[in-house]
Amino acid sequence: MELLRKTLDQITPVSEIWREKARKYILTLTMPPWALGRLLDLAVDLAGIQETLQVRTARKNIILMAADHGITEEGVSPSPKEVTRQMIANFVAGGAGVSVLARQTGAKVTIVDIGVDADLSACGDRMLHRKIRRGTANFARGPAMSREEAVRSIETGIEIAQDLAGETDIFGTGDMGIGNTSPSSAILSVLTGVPLPQAVGMGGGLTPEKIQHKIKVIARGIDLNRPDRADPLDVLAKVGGLEIGGIAGVILGAAAQHKAVVVDGFISTAGAMIAAELCPDSVSYMILAHRSAEPGHRAMTDRLGKTPLLDLGLRLGEGTGGALAMPLLDSAAAILREMSTFESAAVSGEGDYRQ
Amino acid sequence: MELLRKTLDQITPVSEIWREKARKYILTLTMPPWALGRLLDLAVDLAGIQETLQVRTARKNIILMAADHGITEEGVSPSPKEVTRQMIANFVAGGAGVSVLARQTGAKVTIVDIGVDADLSACGDRMLHRKIRRGTANFARGPAMSREEAVRSIETGIEIAQDLAGETDIFGTGDMGIGNTSPSSAILSVLTGVPLPQAVGMGGGLTPEKIQHKIKVIARGIDLNRPDRADPLDVLAKVGGLEIGGIAGVILGAAAQHKAVVVDGFISTAGAMIAAELCPDSVSYMILAHRSAEPGHRAMTDRLGKTPLLDLGLRLGEGTGGALAMPLLDSAAAILREMSTFESAAVSGEGDYRQ
Repeated sequence: MELLRKTLDQITPVSEIWREKARKYILTLTMPPWALGRLLDLAVDLAGIQETLQVRTARKNIILMAADHGITEEGVSPSPKEVTRQMIANFVAGGAGVSVLARQTGAKVTIVDIGVDADLSACGDRMLHRKIRRGTANFARGPAMSREEAVRSIETGIEIAQDLAGETDIFGTGDMGIGNTSPSSAILSVLTGVPLPQAVGMGGGLTPEKIQHKIKVIARGIDLNRPDRADPLDVLAKVGGLEIGGIAGVILGAAAQHKAVVVDGFISTAGAMIAAELCPDSVSYMILAHRSAEPGHRAMTDRLGKTPLLDLGLRLGEGTGGALAMPLLDSAAAILREMSTFESAAVSGEGDYRQ
Repeated sequence: MELLRKTLDQITPVSEIWREKARKYILTLTMPPWALGRLLDLAVDLAGIQETLQVRTARKNIILMAADHGITEEGVSPSPKEVTRQMIANFVAGGAGVSVLARQTGAKVTIVDIGVDADLSACGDRMLHRKIRRGTANFARGPAMSREEAVRSIETGIEIAQDLAGETDIFGTGDMGIGNTSPSSAILSVLTGVPLPQAVGMGGGLTPEKIQHKIKVIARGIDLNRPDRADPLDVLAKVGGLEIGGIAGVILGAAAQHKAVVVDGFISTAGAMIAAELCPDSVSYMILAHRSAEPGHRAMTDRLGKTPLLDLGLRLGEGTGGALAMPLLDSAAAILREMSTFESAAVSGEGDYRQ
């Protein structure tokens, strides 16, 4: 709790001075006012976070938090829990979706076992071994974890962000955990009051009938555990997941170090909501990568007041959407760094192209 | 007319056999079915166009067609015509938006003078000199160009695509031409029947009052010239632009060579509409880069039956949206090339994660 408290104290609002400097500088670049739209908004965000117009994006690291979920006992996922372990082998071997996309877009992937229900010691130093417990308990029958474990999951994410901050310009978040759309939907519904039928989707590929079953299971879990919506640690402990806590921690740790963090889809945004509840100032360090195909994602992003960069119907997680969004950050930084001004290029200025 | 006719004859439908091979192969990759959404649709499109699962995207070339417009005499643009020439110097020097973004995302930019109202010989071989005439005539007072010039503009684009096809995996289109939203809106309205108030926007940054004036000017041009909506060459000649014809030609030339072509925003999509009218089979070689901030763009993309990859509120043109979309093509190709299958990764298959 000590590290979490200290980290929350360290997070300060993003620099409005540098945001304004970036806005003014962008208006001197050779294009009609704000003609690159949201790419320029992104450049302003990055300049504010890094407190410079010489924004750095080269060193990207997607922190992929993996854990298991007791709720899978209730038949809320089309896949068995052991796929979590199998997919970790796939990440380690570099053949999973996020492995391919991160390689393609210049990002590292740091794989973290924060609570997988398997012995992963054979993976050695190709991943971080930070297991808190072997999966959560089934939250349809009791709390997913203790409050202390919830805090430890967040602090694990903070520690990893702290450890990597010196070698990282841009953090990303990712998740692996069969069953983890269920805790994410539960967190969404509890924190915002969105009814469960609007917060629950197909996850890994449920049929409409099985989605109805999933809604009932999650509703039972919320009724049973009565998470306190004013207490995000209670919500995380009662109906959350270890990787969701870890993602919240990465975001808070990144924000405390003035690093931007690219938030992937539905599960990562559930983690972002926990971070936002703990520290509203952390939101301005978040860059939402993409609009998930999970129907509840819009209510999450509305709550955060942010619009994702991409909308490609992704529903894979792992950090794949974050990896796909990374080139947009490189491009936003390049505009600030390399584009010519009206003066330098001798393009007609005030009142003309520039207005 | 000979080259245009021959090219239209060469364009064949995209291979449904290879599209189906790609779909089937993707279902063997380690993720829930179609969990990377539109990135996988893009992979299927590319596999169909290139007739291989080993899709190549490394060699990208954005053909930036530049021309001037007589309609600027009517005060339809906030910028004077000479900015076209100034921006070409900016492209040649590598400081414009598209220069920066193409460099960042690994694309070449081929700058083409297809009708700039200035002597650009000083730029030497840093650009292609294919001027057809020094800007179009003012289409509010007569036809923008002759039918022969319209055909030559398209054939110029075809020739450039043919010349570069051997060294290009992916083509892109771009435009520069102060005033060119006006012919684009006119083409949209004539070809689809969309009323001008829904087809006309702020362009480079008009005030609402000046947008009303722009609508009236374009309406006058259409009334006066009576373009035949069943004859795309007549539409291009009467109310079009030389760079718009050139873009249509690049698209047709790329399609004839079985090359994908990334279509930028509003002006490029006007060119794509001309190409589609001349040859409906060319549409499946087009990849729409982004949703333009110009309000008429949606009617264009609806007509083409395609959804753009990005939606970032861009309204710069030049090929900037195409440059920003290029990494998504690289990523789609990498998924086909590098992602592991259920078999190779020993991830639980049929009935499990795979379903």
